[in-house]
Amino acid sequence: MRKKPRILNTRTVAQSRLFHIEALDLEFSNGTTTQYERLRGASRGTVLIVPMLDSHTVLLVREYAAGTERYELGFPKGRIEPDEPLLEAANRELMEEVGYGAKRLEHLTSLTLAPGFLGHATEIVLAQDLYPQRLEGDEPEELEVVHWDMDAVGALWRSGECTEARTIAALFITREHLSGS
Amino acid sequence: MRKKPRILNTRTVAQSRLFHIEALDLEFSNGTTTQYERLRGASRGTVLIVPMLDSHTVLLVREYAAGTERYELGFPKGRIEPDEPLLEAANRELMEEVGYGAKRLEHLTSLTLAPGFLGHATEIVLAQDLYPQRLEGDEPEELEVVHWDMDAVGALWRSGECTEARTIAALFITREHLSGS
Repeated sequence: MRKKPRILNTRTVAQSRLFHIEALDLEFSNGTTTQYERLRGASRGTVLIVPMLDSHTVLLVREYAAGTERYELGFPKGRIEPDEPLLEAANRELMEEVGYGAKRLEHLTSLTLAPGFLGHATEIVLAQDLYPQRLEGDEPEELEVVHWDMDAVGALWRSGECTEARTIAALFITREHLSGS
Repeated sequence: MRKKPRILNTRTVAQSRLFHIEALDLEFSNGTTTQYERLRGASRGTVLIVPMLDSHTVLLVREYAAGTERYELGFPKGRIEPDEPLLEAANRELMEEVGYGAKRLEHLTSLTLAPGFLGHATEIVLAQDLYPQRLEGDEPEELEVVHWDMDAVGALWRSGECTEARTIAALFITREHLSGS
């Protein structure tokens, strides 16, 4: 494995309520120096939950996305609060967004979005043995819950309603995990 | 389908060389008003290329990622230049990062990263019928090219070396596309 570039310095170049943009001067092992920008989020990271209602049905939510200015279909997700254990955060978000709790929660993997400029990680948690349980969340409107057949994963990304890479990756990963392959 | 929230106003709250953070006041159809922040990139979007060396081998690159401060394995990708047609951008990035051109390029789908706060889209392009062709890019060091067996997609996300959701989603999508399912 190649030697990592040396970070010569980092400084904040812009900041808002949620985001923090840093500029970095890097020196690569071949001597090349260059400047990058990266974004730091305010939170510890995000948890994305794959809720299995039964052995072949997952639950998705339809939520307004301000970045793309439309409703997007995806797995429920939310920020992990400071000091909150990962699986508790997963169960809390599941109760808030979908109206279910889970008796069985399993951390499958950790995904990144754009590691070149975002340090942000999304923890993928599989939720099984669901039971109805609603918790009050901070959503501005109730989310529509959509049942989806796991075998119709092709129909999901072809539908144009679900574009989020981490939802599509999480669905494929879950399918592989459950099939034991 | 539910009525979209009304955007009452948007304003820039922070800006850097590459990024532009906007605050939005939104009014949902139930009357709730709330403030969101979102990030706009400087570019038209990103193209991610799935290069098939033969019917079961894809090419990945190992590249330093400043967001996570480590080398990450993923498909080659880069910005689409202003006025550059998508498939030309795909072939240019493929030549710059991998040292191949493609005689057959096909747009499979468009993925988002975090549509709640990023407008950014990544166009997934399948590249086949490759031939050696190198173009000088702007990478600070040469990228290591890694051959990967398409059937070992589970080994890829389990390796811990490839965490990027859009690379994992693109690999699964390509496999489904090629199998005709």
